[in-house]
Amino acid sequence: MDTRVKSDAALDLGAWMTGHLARVERALESWVIGSAPNQLDHGAPAKLIQAMRYAVLDGGKRLRPLLVLAAWETVSAESGTPPCPPGSESYQAALRAACAVELIHAYSLVHDDMPCMDNDVLRRGKPTVHVKFGEAGALLAGDALQALAFELLTPEAGMPLAQQGSLCRLLARAAGSSGMAGGQAIDLASVGVALNELQLRQMHRLKTGALLQASVMMGAAFGEIPEPAQRALQDYGAAIGLAFQVVDDILDVTADSATLGKTAGKDANHDKPTYVSVLGLERSIAYAQELLQQALVALDQSGLRQTQALQGLANMVVRRSS
Amino acid sequence: MDTRVKSDAALDLGAWMTGHLARVERALESWVIGSAPNQLDHGAPAKLIQAMRYAVLDGGKRLRPLLVLAAWETVSAESGTPPCPPGSESYQAALRAACAVELIHAYSLVHDDMPCMDNDVLRRGKPTVHVKFGEAGALLAGDALQALAFELLTPEAGMPLAQQGSLCRLLARAAGSSGMAGGQAIDLASVGVALNELQLRQMHRLKTGALLQASVMMGAAFGEIPEPAQRALQDYGAAIGLAFQVVDDILDVTADSATLGKTAGKDANHDKPTYVSVLGLERSIAYAQELLQQALVALDQSGLRQTQALQGLANMVVRRSS
Repeated sequence: MDTRVKSDAALDLGAWMTGHLARVERALESWVIGSAPNQLDHGAPAKLIQAMRYAVLDGGKRLRPLLVLAAWETVSAESGTPPCPPGSESYQAALRAACAVELIHAYSLVHDDMPCMDNDVLRRGKPTVHVKFGEAGALLAGDALQALAFELLTPEAGMPLAQQGSLCRLLARAAGSSGMAGGQAIDLASVGVALNELQLRQMHRLKTGALLQASVMMGAAFGEIPEPAQRALQDYGAAIGLAFQVVDDILDVTADSATLGKTAGKDANHDKPTYVSVLGLERSIAYAQELLQQALVALDQSGLRQTQALQGLANMVVRRSS
Repeated sequence: MDTRVKSDAALDLGAWMTGHLARVERALESWVIGSAPNQLDHGAPAKLIQAMRYAVLDGGKRLRPLLVLAAWETVSAESGTPPCPPGSESYQAALRAACAVELIHAYSLVHDDMPCMDNDVLRRGKPTVHVKFGEAGALLAGDALQALAFELLTPEAGMPLAQQGSLCRLLARAAGSSGMAGGQAIDLASVGVALNELQLRQMHRLKTGALLQASVMMGAAFGEIPEPAQRALQDYGAAIGLAFQVVDDILDVTADSATLGKTAGKDANHDKPTYVSVLGLERSIAYAQELLQQALVALDQSGLRQTQALQGLANMVVRRSS
């Protein structure tokens, strides 16, 4: 008898998030400190670690880690074995993947805020890393955070080597020139350029979508699921990746800096193409809803039994106010 | 009968290098272009790829790739099977590792040359990347090259996943805060600071030594060799890593910019501590020789049968003129 039935039990997303978020914060804290080299008596790496910690800790919605953990839960439930407790090797491995994605995200913000890029002074309600640690400090902190992401995915023990390879593959592709960095390059070249909707979508598919989708697929890499379910999760990831950006563009014109924790209106002010500038506000709001539906339909048709957390996160992405 | 005898046959290092270098250049060319995303009609990623290519191609001694390939040959010879031809899966995998290390090295130069770091305008005899592509272009090209290094190590086919994990582990640690990026942070904080020899060695052990040593160990990761041989290769890597920097410091004061292909005397002029400033020129030259001997002794005592290429590269590191 197959004991795996589709679970319709309501999930208390708030409680679910609280538990995972606390563990993500603790893990990030321990792993970013843990990256310090051996004692040195003139303090430079200590300053590097400080800048890395500043970039990563005490802020951020941690959406990417939550997506990794939600997808991990979904594929774990398919195995039919009891849920893995947070202390289990499987959870700890998933936590590494969750934190690795967040480190890539954090490094991209550090570099993106630098004077030669967006030249932004406010992030998560605090001075940006280059304001606090100087430009060279921000450059190196970002570089070191990217390397640390791959360090987290390749521990000496506790994660099979083959799994390490799979996770590094997903993360490297999402971060590089055919993912996040490629999208940022398009973004950079798009200031003052009139993009059509297709071009805008392509830019965001790379710039933010690739890493959000990779978060889902890295979580899914912890289990064996059928090919159609894999594709459904990819569709889910693509839809919420795009929805995230559409909502970002909406909030950029409708929210203030205090709510956002970053400079509001900066994309519109910098003459960057946004969904609001291309589609208008009303159609952008409708488009975000449409993408949410696409994400939920993908989950529904995936054949996967336990997708409540992924559903909840999709709703959160579209309904957030910051 | 063990047919594996210690080979004393002289190696024509020039011929050995010529063959491998041609394959490294072709592979870098194909893999950096290959990282381009799908066709886009407004050219930004094309510009990113251009900047990445500019940073990587047509220059550089390729010492790190050669170390990977030499160590790969050494451990392959231990297996007792016939040498793997360049078309073999094993050679192609080693070539990936060789190019991955070079990409990390290339990205570090791009970021290191930026105005907020060394502010250098000349590299490998050409304008630096930020001079040619702007600061934002250089920042993104460096970021994307780091990600591409991990992409090269994690192909869909042709390399066992477990091996991918091992190689990513070695590279991530060598590149990050307890390796290259950490050493750069110490370097940055050391301008105008009087370091003693121990502190200087620690800085260079991280800044350049970690990646050179990782090159050797990544090549060695393609075979199974006894623990003492592993340690001997680590010692070899540490010795040539340090020797490389000592010779760099010597050349910084004895060679001119045209020979170096980069700005000569810049470290001394920037009031950065160097081996020459700490030990004096004569003792620095003697120290480089001492490190060469350490490297050769380590190989000799490794019990490994075929180490001529590694020996030749150690000699080259110390006797080079640029």
